[in-house]
Amino acid sequence: MTTTDPQHIAGEIAQQLESAWNAADGAAFGAPFTDDADFVAIRGDHHRTREAIAHGHQAIFDSIYKGSVLRHEVAQARALTHDVLLVHLLSTLTSPGGPLAGTHQSFASMVLVQTPAGWRIAAFHNTLIAPPRG
Amino acid sequence: MTTTDPQHIAGEIAQQLESAWNAADGAAFGAPFTDDADFVAIRGDHHRTREAIAHGHQAIFDSIYKGSVLRHEVAQARALTHDVLLVHLLSTLTSPGGPLAGTHQSFASMVLVQTPAGWRIAAFHNTLIAPPRG
Repeated sequence: MTTTDPQHIAGEIAQQLESAWNAADGAAFGAPFTDDADFVAIRGDHHRTREAIAHGHQAIFDSIYKGSVLRHEVAQARALTHDVLLVHLLSTLTSPGGPLAGTHQSFASMVLVQTPAGWRIAAFHNTLIAPPRG
Repeated sequence: MTTTDPQHIAGEIAQQLESAWNAADGAAFGAPFTDDADFVAIRGDHHRTREAIAHGHQAIFDSIYKGSVLRHEVAQARALTHDVLLVHLLSTLTSPGGPLAGTHQSFASMVLVQTPAGWRIAAFHNTLIAPPRG
């Protein structure tokens, strides 16, 4: 694996997000995003900028997702161009309380762009995986 | 507006998807996607390739979304690089039946890439907009 391997790059970013979530650290969660990143959360709400993403996550770490544990798995990573990667993450969240008490899975699309500072997340979009139709 | 204007490019693609949906034409819906496109639908299910996207949409046009009407609004369109655009769509679906009978809104992220044939959708991810928390 080299630093140009999509799976490897995706894995490092996924690990950063996972560690930040599990440390309940909003600033660390925001760190891998670009300044002007877009984030669409599971309720279809759209957040813009790293700062808003960091603050918004700190707020949920301190409230509805307090004590929760997240695990990320890179489901797919591929290059769209030489400086843009498309990544899909399968996430498993275990939360002691809040609207997602228990264990739930979500599926995210993440767009990474190469910047002078390294690969950063320009766009993140996350959707809860629904149970099979009854 | 020129053909390099993100809002204009996004609007044309959004219109193609909307027209194809309203004509219940799966092949036309698939047409603006790249061969190897990724599509994440509202239940968190991941579909790959234009062919699968076209067939999957034909199946829902003929069943749960039969007679439904979709309207797309480009909420945001911006260039990530010179050949990749990030687009957000606000969609309003009115369906006479099925699991989404009535009117619902969703919010999608769409990644467009420039190809020799023009701009194509490399990735689409759609999430239902949840009602405000009670």
